Amino acid sequence: MGKKKDMLRELAGRIYDLDVEVYEKLGSSLGRVFNQERERCIKELMKLMDSKSKSHILRSQLALISNMARTIEDDLTQDLIMKKYGAILQEVTDLPKSFASEDILDEKLAQLNEWNLEARFSKDNHLVICIGRAYGCGGSEIGFVLADSLQINYYDVEIFNAVLKRMELEKEAVEDQAGFPAFQPVQKLTLRQRIKEINRYHGLPKRDAVFFNQCDLICDMARKEDFVVMGRCADAILTNNHIPHISIYITAPFEQRVRRMMKINKKMSEKQVRELIRKWDRKHAKYYEYYTGRRWGGVENYDLCINSASYGIDGSVELIRRMIKKT
Amino acid sequence: MGKKKDMLRELAGRIYDLDVEVYEKLGSSLGRVFNQERERCIKELMKLMDSKSKSHILRSQLALISNMARTIEDDLTQDLIMKKYGAILQEVTDLPKSFASEDILDEKLAQLNEWNLEARFSKDNHLVICIGRAYGCGGSEIGFVLADSLQINYYDVEIFNAVLKRMELEKEAVEDQAGFPAFQPVQKLTLRQRIKEINRYHGLPKRDAVFFNQCDLICDMARKEDFVVMGRCADAILTNNHIPHISIYITAPFEQRVRRMMKINKKMSEKQVRELIRKWDRKHAKYYEYYTGRRWGGVENYDLCINSASYGIDGSVELIRRMIKKT
Repeated sequence: MGKKKDMLRELAGRIYDLDVEVYEKLGSSLGRVFNQERERCIKELMKLMDSKSKSHILRSQLALISNMARTIEDDLTQDLIMKKYGAILQEVTDLPKSFASEDILDEKLAQLNEWNLEARFSKDNHLVICIGRAYGCGGSEIGFVLADSLQINYYDVEIFNAVLKRMELEKEAVEDQAGFPAFQPVQKLTLRQRIKEINRYHGLPKRDAVFFNQCDLICDMARKEDFVVMGRCADAILTNNHIPHISIYITAPFEQRVRRMMKINKKMSEKQVRELIRKWDRKHAKYYEYYTGRRWGGVENYDLCINSASYGIDGSVELIRRMIKKT
Repeated sequence: MGKKKDMLRELAGRIYDLDVEVYEKLGSSLGRVFNQERERCIKELMKLMDSKSKSHILRSQLALISNMARTIEDDLTQDLIMKKYGAILQEVTDLPKSFASEDILDEKLAQLNEWNLEARFSKDNHLVICIGRAYGCGGSEIGFVLADSLQINYYDVEIFNAVLKRMELEKEAVEDQAGFPAFQPVQKLTLRQRIKEINRYHGLPKRDAVFFNQCDLICDMARKEDFVVMGRCADAILTNNHIPHISIYITAPFEQRVRRMMKINKKMSEKQVRELIRKWDRKHAKYYEYYTGRRWGGVENYDLCINSASYGIDGSVELIRRMIKKT
């Protein structure tokens, strides 16, 4: 106990002395963090070092000393002082109650987060990037260009529908080869077709059935290939199934989205465009919340959120590529 | 006009033929995007190429073809087809009404965004990183470690207060040398002191006065040095003053923040910690909205938002460093 106290006292003394040294080099009253007499300051510092909940004050004091030290004009002196500071900082950081002692990392989340682990790309996991986006922010363009530049597959709602439809057709074709004609007029459902329809969806409403088929497809794909997927709650689906991926949400200020969509939909009035964007945002949010129970566009539900108006389409792609170290 | 139509028809034909080629190589009904007869599909494609508002369908169709093409096992064949695809994609992208023809970039925002422009770091702009954060997400730790690893200054509320207080003292000391005693008892304000107090704040409530002093300080600093600043609405202040910077918002899921803060504040009950986090989030939001008129933590108000639970403190620092290409 006494030993620990001695150690803290010694460290506190060095912090105080460093502050004095910086102050002496700079000669300004602005250069002084600790204005009280030495012994009193050391006691204060020791208290801060021994309290997790107040250790952030010590962090600020250290930062202030180093901020000041960086203004010392003589390079050699500055270097010497910054080295002393670096050593002190390391020791403070290593204290059991230091300001760096509690990480925010969620182990489970981190394990699922692909760009956390550089080793990931060499393991047998695939690079799966889930992109949610607000209507009109260029998110789909970003996803498409990103997939193309990474030379990996791109999936959006149209592609899913096409794939699911064709998988269904293929399945039917296989089934139908077992005795039934391959093509039937589909205007009117026969009793047999109705039963088939019900079986196919396991008695679920069609929307839910489509969603669950998509779930299976996404999980299956994520085990086999690298890809970018737009929306489809893919982030939540993969998290629930413990499959690593990166989740990104892209948006832009409403007014900027309005400006962009007006250029794209020249036939619509500004009022119509505004309503369209609001409608689609609402729809997306409802869909996401219905199937995931999470808040759509809530920063805490994604690994990362990007304001595309700050970067543009190519800039956003470049930003994401940097993060997965592909540039 | 006819020439443009011929060009579109030729391009549409190549898209159709590429799909057929991919389909033939793969031999599965899943490999076929266009199921109708050639002429009809070409007409559809031409319509899509000539409509900005529907060009995203063409994008999905192209993506589907390339997704399929990537499953071709013979490398040489795949390579050849992907080259054809690449050429087609380029031509489609270059069309005046293509899906890539309207960027979301906000020129004004982009000009202020430091990591948009690689050249920025070589110009006379400084690297200013503004970090807003939810309570308990480790945001201050991330900012501090980031500043230290970049060897630039770190500012938070404690440091601002200390700096402002000392600047005030210095100013007074200078004033006081002009005939008044340097130290006066401050328990009771004299009439002269009261007047001084009012003059200092230009008649504003103290909170506002402090804020405006901070504004000046932040703008002044951003013209002179590189730094990381925590909160203080620095992002909005710099945007309003047209000073380049990077704005980041950091948060983590509420439950994870609760877990972390309980480890830090061992004396508090879970209920107290929950209330504390909610209280501070509310306070931050109110402060930010009062001075900026913007929504605190709204993705569209920052360049980038990070979920620190996905990365941890060091991981978040590494992520930000990657984006500014400092690793």
